[in-house]
Amino acid sequence: MNKIYTIGIDIGGTNMKAVLFNGTKVIEHFTLGTPKDNLEHLLIMISALIEPLLEHAKKDKIKIAGIGLSIAGPVDFVEQKIVRSPNIPILDGVKLGQIIEKRFGYPVKMDNDGHCFILAEAKIGAGKKHSNIYGVTIGTGIGTAWWINNEVYRGYNSGAGEVAHTLINCNEIITLEKAYQYLTQNNPAQLAENAYRGDTLADKAFAEIGKILGIAFANLVNTLDPEIFIIGGGVMESESLFLPKIKKTMQEYIINTKSKKTKIIKARLGTDAGAIGAALLVNREA
Amino acid sequence: MNKIYTIGIDIGGTNMKAVLFNGTKVIEHFTLGTPKDNLEHLLIMISALIEPLLEHAKKDKIKIAGIGLSIAGPVDFVEQKIVRSPNIPILDGVKLGQIIEKRFGYPVKMDNDGHCFILAEAKIGAGKKHSNIYGVTIGTGIGTAWWINNEVYRGYNSGAGEVAHTLINCNEIITLEKAYQYLTQNNPAQLAENAYRGDTLADKAFAEIGKILGIAFANLVNTLDPEIFIIGGGVMESESLFLPKIKKTMQEYIINTKSKKTKIIKARLGTDAGAIGAALLVNREA
Repeated sequence: MNKIYTIGIDIGGTNMKAVLFNGTKVIEHFTLGTPKDNLEHLLIMISALIEPLLEHAKKDKIKIAGIGLSIAGPVDFVEQKIVRSPNIPILDGVKLGQIIEKRFGYPVKMDNDGHCFILAEAKIGAGKKHSNIYGVTIGTGIGTAWWINNEVYRGYNSGAGEVAHTLINCNEIITLEKAYQYLTQNNPAQLAENAYRGDTLADKAFAEIGKILGIAFANLVNTLDPEIFIIGGGVMESESLFLPKIKKTMQEYIINTKSKKTKIIKARLGTDAGAIGAALLVNREA
Repeated sequence: MNKIYTIGIDIGGTNMKAVLFNGTKVIEHFTLGTPKDNLEHLLIMISALIEPLLEHAKKDKIKIAGIGLSIAGPVDFVEQKIVRSPNIPILDGVKLGQIIEKRFGYPVKMDNDGHCFILAEAKIGAGKKHSNIYGVTIGTGIGTAWWINNEVYRGYNSGAGEVAHTLINCNEIITLEKAYQYLTQNNPAQLAENAYRGDTLADKAFAEIGKILGIAFANLVNTLDPEIFIIGGGVMESESLFLPKIKKTMQEYIINTKSKKTKIIKARLGTDAGAIGAALLVNREA
């Protein structure tokens, strides 16, 4: 099991995080800022992350099976192409995996960050003992993915898991993501700070965030009825501001009595989850 | 294949329909009004439906493998108990299958009508060539069920498929079902008649029904991304009043480009679907 390493890189809107992974735990990890000016610059920085991890593996005399990439934005998994990346527009439509594969000579696999998050948490994190898991990340945006039958459910056209873009208000045509961005003013960390300082408006915003997320969770239960939810993402550091409200609202709107007890569990892998999920994308038997 | 018959009974809020089924087609069918005064009366009428079908099978010298029941309302499939039946309250909490099993001596299996609808359409109806199907019935209420991996998806606590009870408006806390009932005034047939007569308000109500259903369909695509939708139910007779609007609205709010072409197909088995699905519940090898 531990005789092979894989590398996972989480390419986020702000930082890139790379891990050397032995199948069960992280051996080494590095973080760098994400260049957004041009693709060549981004590739140079990716090299800067990968090189020392390759060196480390060489020193350990352990083979690298491949490299996985976690991308902030929808990825066409079949075509291995980034559909678009709202926060890193230079990646729109790019087959980044193919480029890195050619440059480094290792097999590369890409997936979207929500998928990588749930893959990591389901395989070695908070979901290890569960088989029907709905994953939600709450950060500057909202990411969702469903883990069922021991894999990420992608849907017929790889279009599943876009719950952030479901409409939560028909009259005014508002999506969950838009409502969330409006309430957080695209800066949830600042909003949390204000709430902790006693700002009543910030408190109210978090109560509203808890409500819309609670409704989204109830809608997911009434549609899919997962065993558990696993939630992660940067904003979970301030969970006390909205998690109780999510739970209360969710219970209120679930129809099936038995499903009212659906648990919300906190992610266990922290900010490494995306990179670990990326490292898990690579077939270790390859 | 055709050497065994099963019986399916669809117990609806207005009528009960029973079919004698040979695995591929209906041999004979009967319909009676649904008694709602007491359980014994209901059982007598069920006997009146079953007896001539048993006679028919006897005459054909073909064995009856069992009886399936389709119930208007949530059914606990594991416990084989009717959770509640909003339109036939005498069935609330009743293990109707067990009672009929004892009375007639055949194995009996119950499921909810939405599940029976999609089972029938997927196995021998409009969905025969598809494997990831979202089923929606539009009648006096809205029923939904998902067909995936060659079976009805029930969820971890049998709570899946309650899309009618998802909230489509967070601000005013309105479910799809409530909005639908408000718009149809619980009488969609009358509303359709008014619309065909040129009543502008009825026309507008159907446009609004098309919109909220289109949004619900888009939300389902963004969450589950099925291959096709199959829609049935009594109101589909008036499909021209709302189906174009469903399609237009749905396309508008689907995020994944490839998923925008998700087809909406009309159910093929008509009003027999529920009873056929019930007949298909029974294990033919049993």
